[in-house]
Amino acid sequence: MANTNVREVYNAVGAEAVLTERTDLRYYLTDFESSFGYVLIDKNGAYFYTDPRYFEGAKTALKGSDVEVRLYKGPLTDILKPYKEIALPLSTTYYNDYKKLSDAGLVICDSEAAFKKAMAFKKPYELDYIKKACEITDKSFLSLLPSIKEGMTENEVAAELEYLMRKNGASGTSFQTIVAFGENSSIPHHETGFRKLKFGDIILIDYGCKVGGYCSDCTRTFLFGDDKKHSRFKQTYEYVLNAHMLVKENLRENMTGKEADAIARNYFKELGLDKFFTHSLGHGIGINIHEFPYLSTKSEDVLLNGYVFSDEPGLYFEGDFGIRIEDTVTLSGGKAVSLTNSDKKLIIL
Amino acid sequence: MANTNVREVYNAVGAEAVLTERTDLRYYLTDFESSFGYVLIDKNGAYFYTDPRYFEGAKTALKGSDVEVRLYKGPLTDILKPYKEIALPLSTTYYNDYKKLSDAGLVICDSEAAFKKAMAFKKPYELDYIKKACEITDKSFLSLLPSIKEGMTENEVAAELEYLMRKNGASGTSFQTIVAFGENSSIPHHETGFRKLKFGDIILIDYGCKVGGYCSDCTRTFLFGDDKKHSRFKQTYEYVLNAHMLVKENLRENMTGKEADAIARNYFKELGLDKFFTHSLGHGIGINIHEFPYLSTKSEDVLLNGYVFSDEPGLYFEGDFGIRIEDTVTLSGGKAVSLTNSDKKLIIL
Repeated sequence: MANTNVREVYNAVGAEAVLTERTDLRYYLTDFESSFGYVLIDKNGAYFYTDPRYFEGAKTALKGSDVEVRLYKGPLTDILKPYKEIALPLSTTYYNDYKKLSDAGLVICDSEAAFKKAMAFKKPYELDYIKKACEITDKSFLSLLPSIKEGMTENEVAAELEYLMRKNGASGTSFQTIVAFGENSSIPHHETGFRKLKFGDIILIDYGCKVGGYCSDCTRTFLFGDDKKHSRFKQTYEYVLNAHMLVKENLRENMTGKEADAIARNYFKELGLDKFFTHSLGHGIGINIHEFPYLSTKSEDVLLNGYVFSDEPGLYFEGDFGIRIEDTVTLSGGKAVSLTNSDKKLIIL
Repeated sequence: MANTNVREVYNAVGAEAVLTERTDLRYYLTDFESSFGYVLIDKNGAYFYTDPRYFEGAKTALKGSDVEVRLYKGPLTDILKPYKEIALPLSTTYYNDYKKLSDAGLVICDSEAAFKKAMAFKKPYELDYIKKACEITDKSFLSLLPSIKEGMTENEVAAELEYLMRKNGASGTSFQTIVAFGENSSIPHHETGFRKLKFGDIILIDYGCKVGGYCSDCTRTFLFGDDKKHSRFKQTYEYVLNAHMLVKENLRENMTGKEADAIARNYFKELGLDKFFTHSLGHGIGINIHEFPYLSTKSEDVLLNGYVFSDEPGLYFEGDFGIRIEDTVTLSGGKAVSLTNSDKKLIIL
């Protein structure tokens, strides 16, 4: 049976009707992946309007559920004629679409907050998908290590890792895999390219996969052989790992994203290194690789049990090297529990 | 040197300043891949505002180009203070963003048409990327065929194909690979799953990869062994191939998307099969896997030399089987030239 979430979201929004075209929200509501469609919910029912590419598949997937599949023939304003008020996710509703509905005389309100909160709290079936994605992430990384050889390109290492995740049951990557060799590791979001691996290189890999439409996210930084020129790297690695672990030890339910971020940032500050921690500590993870809540210097998002997010402090020295250590974690029983678990002790291949 | 397109777009838009946050437009303007940033163009220059994750990489990539990289500190309204008028891609600008700029007193106009036209016409460097992606697509498909074995899942076949494309130099897939076995082929956009391959199965594979940020798109339908129960399939295959080839032979510059679509649709109509052709003939291909122009029953988009799009007729018999044959093509010298070229004669493994 499909895991639909239409009634919960409808009740949380509290408008006459709820409408969304957004891919992630559509998937959350219907448990069916599609690149086109609208979900409409009112007090009587929920309707997934889609095109012939998805119609048959959606009917099969949603049989017996509380979502009725209908062929979209448009225009949208005709479908919405029975309603006076419609809730849209405003921060991600296109201006033209808003205007069309507004010009048709509909009162428009915002469904964003209800979606955010509902999606941040992971139900058991969602957590199972994420756990499975994290297991595949860990397992694939361990299988990758022995196949990393001198002369391989960043692109080839990414290809191997993605292949392993796929073979282990993932439906794909949760974002474009980042593989950075040597000095490229100093660019937090380096574009994986054709730099060849040399003895003594730092390797930074930021990767994740999808299972059942849900993401994992993990980063490991390690050495390809020890050329004995890495004492500063090794010291810095300990600092980043300490920051990462401090977050896991001290993060508690009801903290804001800002307070969580400060755990790592204040530690770096004491070391005089905070200016090299150039991004935020983490982000929510679910159907989207980046979603509510955010763990950053400005975030007032309150972290609650059942939320899943990343713990990913990093330090970057321009043109020299960078280190990031990231796990996907969930708040459970008031504390952070790691879902990615491959060893974080410095690996030297 | 980065292939920037800022001046061309600015001149085509004709507003005081042009602003975009959209990932694909940002990439088109700067030749630099990023998940956050704004590109702002005025009569004096072009500025790429991004965050520390991309700042260093962007500076290196855009050195010496006509785009200056700046660290985004926000708010956006401060950056836009010098201007009275700003052009946004309206159909994909979020309502909240529009409202923020409008409330700040800015006159807002639409940059969409200028972007669409500029991006549809592929410059030589863009065509080179697409050609390379298409070559990898073809080569990887041919390497895949001997590795397809009985008992493999759809997911495993997708994993092998994606791995081959990666190893052959692609930076990733251009969309989630569709592998459909047997009756699953009747769902035009089937979600690749765990159905196991049996002797006599139809295999439909819709796949593509990215090179330099540009996409390829290709579909092949074939048989895993001949169990002699496929006479209707074989006859239908000929029909779909005929429709595909008729489009290539008869499509001309200055046709509308509707006229192009009709070439295939009218042929199916003569055979009484048009109701099984449940999607449109094709779509533009570039940085996005689906972009302007569209080849559909309603499209008034005019097809011009230099455009790249798909030719993908298909017939689907619910619960039974489906066939789609797709190539990426470009309009050159007034006629369609195929960029994916693996054999379309029915393959029986």
